[in-house]
Amino acid sequence: MRISDLSRLSGVPITTIKYYLREGLLPPGTPTAHNQAVYDDDHLRRLRLIRALVSVRGLSVNATAELLEALSRDDGDLHRTLGLVLGALPVGEHPAGDQPAGDTVPRARLEEAEKLIEALGWRIHRRSEGRLALARALYEMAEVGLPLRVETLVPYARLTERIAALDLDQLAGDEDDHIDIAERAVLTTILLEPVLLLLRRMAQENESASRHGTGEEPR
Amino acid sequence: MRISDLSRLSGVPITTIKYYLREGLLPPGTPTAHNQAVYDDDHLRRLRLIRALVSVRGLSVNATAELLEALSRDDGDLHRTLGLVLGALPVGEHPAGDQPAGDTVPRARLEEAEKLIEALGWRIHRRSEGRLALARALYEMAEVGLPLRVETLVPYARLTERIAALDLDQLAGDEDDHIDIAERAVLTTILLEPVLLLLRRMAQENESASRHGTGEEPR
Repeated sequence: MRISDLSRLSGVPITTIKYYLREGLLPPGTPTAHNQAVYDDDHLRRLRLIRALVSVRGLSVNATAELLEALSRDDGDLHRTLGLVLGALPVGEHPAGDQPAGDTVPRARLEEAEKLIEALGWRIHRRSEGRLALARALYEMAEVGLPLRVETLVPYARLTERIAALDLDQLAGDEDDHIDIAERAVLTTILLEPVLLLLRRMAQENESASRHGTGEEPR
Repeated sequence: MRISDLSRLSGVPITTIKYYLREGLLPPGTPTAHNQAVYDDDHLRRLRLIRALVSVRGLSVNATAELLEALSRDDGDLHRTLGLVLGALPVGEHPAGDQPAGDTVPRARLEEAEKLIEALGWRIHRRSEGRLALARALYEMAEVGLPLRVETLVPYARLTERIAALDLDQLAGDEDDHIDIAERAVLTTILLEPVLLLLRRMAQENESASRHGTGEEPR
């Protein structure tokens, strides 16, 4: 296919595709006469993954290039592929987990996050961004006077386990096609976030109606 | 208590408290000699709710004033109180649900959101912001090539029902104290959002390790 087809099928403008080609995110097409090039389905799938990482996950073009480079070394390990595109695994030499955390998050909150992960029995990469991010979120809640105990969080976490199982079910398919799964993992994970939060708000409204409602719709 | 105590106990700076007093969000204290005023626990609880609405829910001072005014008319209906502070119920004359929706969200997505709510059997206010927001989120997913069917969303929604039940359990307590419950509802609902999303990401990592992992930690 020509670059115009690639643009139409991916929804990415031609000028942006040319930029990705110059930056090496996309490998060059096969040259033809008339100084043109043709592209194949691999280009299309890789371009869709780039779009998901840049537009949906919000990575910079440089970070996306690093991540694609790391993916190309993943020799068939789907767990590693998913970890990389979802940000659970450190891509390069400067992962978030290595930043000095003590400056902003007190040690007690870090220990609490570790205690929760242990209580759940979850297998989480030791340098996962999630550990620090969770500690920071717990810290922010404690700061406004709403400290959460591990016992309070466990039942929430058990429900997110079941949400994660639904997420992974959606990714099932051709498990050899890591590029395609990686793209769908990014889209499903990130785009479902606002949907899940909205569903929770509406479920709260429904639950509140059951517990406290008068039967009439409030004004 | 004096204004300095109010500031210390609420974490709101004195200049901000004076601003809220001028704008009428907080009723004046009882005047004493020396041109000072004293405040009571009602001031403190109301100030905490204002802080939650402004700093955490991100409302403007005007919107907060309108909301407090609407709350003062709620004559003991806790379901209505929760609906107002969580944004499920329209406060004034220009609720989000009345905005022309057809401009940005196609009718098909609005119908899909309605179909989901009906399939779930949820009691959601007809002018709830959630209806339009859900339709918009479904539209955005379809736009990037990931349309979600109602059948796919129902199991997610059932899990959010159970999350909402945990949320409401946390608010249980002195149900006559609407100001206090309203503050905790805002904090619990909004501050738990990033925590829930992080737990989902980590649960995905754990689930992926179970399904695809090699037993070794990825590099």
